[in-house]
Amino acid sequence: MQKEFLGSAFLLDNEPAKAAYAAAEKMPIFDWHCHLSPKEIYENAAPSDLAALWLGGDHYKWRAMRSCGVPERLITGNAPGEEKFRAFAACMPDLIGNPMYHWVHLELRRYFGIDRILNADSADAIWRDTCATIASGDFTPRALIERSGVTHLCTTDDPADSLEYHQLIARDPSFRCKVLPAFRPDKALAVEAPGWPAWLMEMEARIGAPIDSFAALCDVLRERIAFFASLGCCASDHGFAYVPYAPADSDRVEAIFAAARRCETPDVLAADQFRTALLRFLAAEYAKRGWAMELHIGPMRNNNTKMFRAIGPDTGYDSIGDWPVALQLSRFLDSLAAEDALPRTILFCLNPRDNYVLGSMIGNFQTEEAESKLQFGSAWWFNDNIDGMRAQLAALANLGALGKFIGMVTDSRSFLSYPRHEYFRRILCGFLGDLVAQGQYPDDPAALQTLAENISYRNAMRYFGIEK
Amino acid sequence: MQKEFLGSAFLLDNEPAKAAYAAAEKMPIFDWHCHLSPKEIYENAAPSDLAALWLGGDHYKWRAMRSCGVPERLITGNAPGEEKFRAFAACMPDLIGNPMYHWVHLELRRYFGIDRILNADSADAIWRDTCATIASGDFTPRALIERSGVTHLCTTDDPADSLEYHQLIARDPSFRCKVLPAFRPDKALAVEAPGWPAWLMEMEARIGAPIDSFAALCDVLRERIAFFASLGCCASDHGFAYVPYAPADSDRVEAIFAAARRCETPDVLAADQFRTALLRFLAAEYAKRGWAMELHIGPMRNNNTKMFRAIGPDTGYDSIGDWPVALQLSRFLDSLAAEDALPRTILFCLNPRDNYVLGSMIGNFQTEEAESKLQFGSAWWFNDNIDGMRAQLAALANLGALGKFIGMVTDSRSFLSYPRHEYFRRILCGFLGDLVAQGQYPDDPAALQTLAENISYRNAMRYFGIEK
Amino acid sequence: MQKEFLGSAFLLDNEPAKAAYAAAEKMPIFDWHCHLSPKEIYENAAPSDLAALWLGGDHYKWRAMRSCGVPERLITGNAPGEEKFRAFAACMPDLIGNPMYHWVHLELRRYFGIDRILNADSADAIWRDTCATIASGDFTPRALIERSGVTHLCTTDDPADSLEYHQLIARDPSFRCKVLPAFRPDKALAVEAPGWPAWLMEMEARIGAPIDSFAALCDVLRERIAFFASLGCCASDHGFAYVPYAPADSDRVEAIFAAARRCETPDVLAADQFRTALLRFLAAEYAKRGWAMELHIGPMRNNNTKMFRAIGPDTGYDSIGDWPVALQLSRFLDSLAAEDALPRTILFCLNPRDNYVLGSMIGNFQTEEAESKLQFGSAWWFNDNIDGMRAQLAALANLGALGKFIGMVTDSRSFLSYPRHEYFRRILCGFLGDLVAQGQYPDDPAALQTLAENISYRNAMRYFGIEK
Repeated sequence: MQKEFLGSAFLLDNEPAKAAYAAAEKMPIFDWHCHLSPKEIYENAAPSDLAALWLGGDHYKWRAMRSCGVPERLITGNAPGEEKFRAFAACMPDLIGNPMYHWVHLELRRYFGIDRILNADSADAIWRDTCATIASGDFTPRALIERSGVTHLCTTDDPADSLEYHQLIARDPSFRCKVLPAFRPDKALAVEAPGWPAWLMEMEARIGAPIDSFAALCDVLRERIAFFASLGCCASDHGFAYVPYAPADSDRVEAIFAAARRCETPDVLAADQFRTALLRFLAAEYAKRGWAMELHIGPMRNNNTKMFRAIGPDTGYDSIGDWPVALQLSRFLDSLAAEDALPRTILFCLNPRDNYVLGSMIGNFQTEEAESKLQFGSAWWFNDNIDGMRAQLAALANLGALGKFIGMVTDSRSFLSYPRHEYFRRILCGFLGDLVAQGQYPDDPAALQTLAENISYRNAMRYFGIEK
Repeated sequence: MQKEFLGSAFLLDNEPAKAAYAAAEKMPIFDWHCHLSPKEIYENAAPSDLAALWLGGDHYKWRAMRSCGVPERLITGNAPGEEKFRAFAACMPDLIGNPMYHWVHLELRRYFGIDRILNADSADAIWRDTCATIASGDFTPRALIERSGVTHLCTTDDPADSLEYHQLIARDPSFRCKVLPAFRPDKALAVEAPGWPAWLMEMEARIGAPIDSFAALCDVLRERIAFFASLGCCASDHGFAYVPYAPADSDRVEAIFAAARRCETPDVLAADQFRTALLRFLAAEYAKRGWAMELHIGPMRNNNTKMFRAIGPDTGYDSIGDWPVALQLSRFLDSLAAEDALPRTILFCLNPRDNYVLGSMIGNFQTEEAESKLQFGSAWWFNDNIDGMRAQLAALANLGALGKFIGMVTDSRSFLSYPRHEYFRRILCGFLGDLVAQGQYPDDPAALQTLAENISYRNAMRYFGIEK
Repeated sequence: MQKEFLGSAFLLDNEPAKAAYAAAEKMPIFDWHCHLSPKEIYENAAPSDLAALWLGGDHYKWRAMRSCGVPERLITGNAPGEEKFRAFAACMPDLIGNPMYHWVHLELRRYFGIDRILNADSADAIWRDTCATIASGDFTPRALIERSGVTHLCTTDDPADSLEYHQLIARDPSFRCKVLPAFRPDKALAVEAPGWPAWLMEMEARIGAPIDSFAALCDVLRERIAFFASLGCCASDHGFAYVPYAPADSDRVEAIFAAARRCETPDVLAADQFRTALLRFLAAEYAKRGWAMELHIGPMRNNNTKMFRAIGPDTGYDSIGDWPVALQLSRFLDSLAAEDALPRTILFCLNPRDNYVLGSMIGNFQTEEAESKLQFGSAWWFNDNIDGMRAQLAALANLGALGKFIGMVTDSRSFLSYPRHEYFRRILCGFLGDLVAQGQYPDDPAALQTLAENISYRNAMRYFGIEK
């Protein structure tokens, strides 16, 4: 039987799936990893138009446009927003099967009430209609977050960040969503990056004192962790091309620090030794505080030097790496577990070929400290699509306890991205329902609804300690 | 159409599949690779209860319980069996999509006649009912094997093993199943392991003479192979994180042996050279005897040092490695083929990303010595689930001759594990039936039934030379 | 609902799929990468029988026969063709799920009008019938190409090739298919191969002058590129186990060239440095001419030394490698893009685990020069089957712009291989139709038909500059 495009039964192929989704869709959203700007949330300015909302900073859309041969002027260049929007709309028919096709149309439906198909023919009318809707209000960051049912969200913040906007937001009782910082010390760990000395100086300026040793850096970061915790932080986040594991003694690490502080670039081994030492220190601190440690593993960034020089990072020139992951990740986690210093840990996998490596890895370190203390994170970035999510759910179900999964995050810079939770919940409920329909699980609607609700919201609230 | 949980049409979605399974389910079982204890088979003691049968040694279940946050006391600790069972039952709803969910319920149905769903609510009643059923008899190892239709099984035995229980079992005509030894010289090959010198001494004790050179070790192993063969052995088995291939001359190998015998631990290269030399010797011996060589490739074992120290190996702390496999495996097999010393070989793949590497590798060395002399082994351990089996069947079908596949093994330590053959046969027949239903294969029930019967039983009986 | 074997709805499960295929099947064929012999096309000799057509050079079929235990005498040996055919036919039932099962029966249906199932029972009758049909004519290379609707095809030609047959074919107006050369300098790049000095001498003989430096080699190749272009060449092709990227200065490259010319075999690094330099030179030349650069990545060739010595390369002893691909490929493409010297590039992936690496890689280098200037090539060799094609289509759709895909090639040595385009188009239209049926794309038959037609033919015609 043929289905209506994005209709009510979208991704729900049987009664158990529909019943599970009826429960899941009622759950609020805890978006525990995103890249929203707390400043923008605080300032709460309305967007000018759909080009600003969609094409101002979304490298997914930029990549899609480049794949269709659209000139850069209409992508990141200085063409007018309406012209860019028209170019984007004209690409749509060729993006069949791309998750962006679904995101775009879900956003038009859920936020604008527009169920027309976006393409070259409809672009002008949709532009006009969305401009009118945006102008009529209700499209500020806070309005979008509240309309979307978000009770809590975690941003992504540098240890040197003042968190002033988090504090300002927290003081405003009229905004019901809790905006929590998350601790992302990528710049602290990237000791080989050209920007590392500048980051160190920024941190020195933040604390008003020199940081002249690795030990001092650890002390400072411990204080920043306490500061983040005082504002409700419950999660850290780390991005790696590959997981480093190169143990070294403290003299060696101090020497690497000292050289880096003198702006000498460490070699690969030295950088990995530094990173290993610092990450082990940080992990132990997270463990003490009950924070979760997110590890985003596998991107190969900034592949196009020419465009990097022209328009900088995070502009759509990243792809999937294929470094080995199993041995180093195992040794790293083991070194923490051996000292009772392994925090709750969430492994995000960018190369889908590694789903079974990570999905089986988490089983090595589960303990009674939490229900699935180690988590296999939801399908991410290039896997944030129906196939990728189903593959992640299937791997986790086959290898672990799917019922303890903490579910979806938007990982997004956009205030319109919450339909991705709907997308995920439909995929999840479709997955659960299929198991029932295939005779793989009993037809027990209450059990299935509990699973759907837990994975959609409750598991994460418990895992991060917000709800007991 | 929605199916009954584990009903008669479980995993069989069309008439061709059902007809094929009607043939397959009548076939006996040849379980040519398992980890059953010949001593337990000989002694034939009845189990005390379901906790003993299920939770006494099954690291799959232990991992699942840890994933749900169950305290270790209720897993491998000294809690009473009934309490452990209750904790396990409470985990079940969250194990949706896990093969254990199916194994557990198939075992309750096939051996106990219980079709209730196992969960926290039903745990006590199921405990009582199974205790009563077990007490009424028919749950001894031999009874379970015979009830399951097993005609032959191969255990897993060290070369130094006396095989006394195999001999005792063979002398008892009342037990109809043939219990054959299989030759697993992992300890002999693990020259870098702390236990290697002790293994060598055990072997010296077994033969009553010193083994003072690599050549002498080979002579001893040749004799042990002859001894195993005299008891019906037709298979060897080897487990590797990665396939070693590091050729070295005999002087070098003798030097490595001599140092290891002095309890000096070889480095990685030396260990690989030793392993390469010994494995090539062994493979040539297997080829002479017409034995099959099983290679289980890819586990990363004992990842959790703290738990390894607490409760030892094989307790649920292993996961999937990601070492490269293609080049070394090719060179190793080629070095044997070049000398007409390549035995029948079965490649088992733990990392599912390598299915197509191994599935295409076997095609490089097929000869007229056997129908699919090289086999791509059935989906194993972390792949022993519906998705994993379908992926293995699909890879083999796409790349080779599925009709020559020697099919399933339990690879299990449990006397209740034979429903995994039912599980496999349903998946197999579902796979075959789908090809017919999709118009990919003619609707020829006789052809499909022949395929199902061959893959379920006959191919393996011929491959291992038991049936001509 | 059960489908007829290879019936009209084969691989088309819903109305949108059927409607899309109705459009796709009317499109002509542009087979832009194949291994047909221009000499055979020119000479246009009729084949003797089906054994010559099927078993004379098809290593896919040879591998399949070996997997079934057929003696080599009946595969590549001197047994009579009819006997070989009978042996092949007897293997068929066990090849369930193998693409060859479909290819063989599609060829019998489309070229011979035979819809009987090939097996041991039908072999003799089918042999007789096909012999009669072949004898009645219409089975010459040109007849088969024209009957199949091929408007253009690209062969695979060494830079030293005279292209005499391309010229002869082009002069014959009675043959309507354009037979274009494609530039495959694998021998020029394989500096470590035993045959490299001989290749250099062959090239020297072709141009009638010594090639005594790397710079001179580049000059010669530039001239050959011009010559190929004059005969309509629009594509190059390169095969690699892994993509080399080892930049070196020109003195170093000249030294490697000089040593290799003296028949000294370079080591791995030197060979990669030579290859990197030459490939970068060639790529820049392709870019200037608007040619596409095909990169076929990942085979591990000639794994069976014994059989290589007996019957040579390309006889069915190749399999899938597992070298890392992401970093070196990225650096190589980036080094070209940085100098505006990156041509249209098509990445073919042999190891399906790398689909997402390559599918995301192309997005790093898309520009407005073409619609999807970088292409993720169709599923190839061991992936040239339903599962492989669906996986490639899904990866491309998820990561890029499927509507810009340039589609299928036969990559074949056989004049009977064109039903593989039918096979691909059915899989493609099935894929598109499923997206509509699942509510993932609007039910817009015109849009779907445009997509199907573009991917089947028009995109490639535009991409290679044949149609504007």
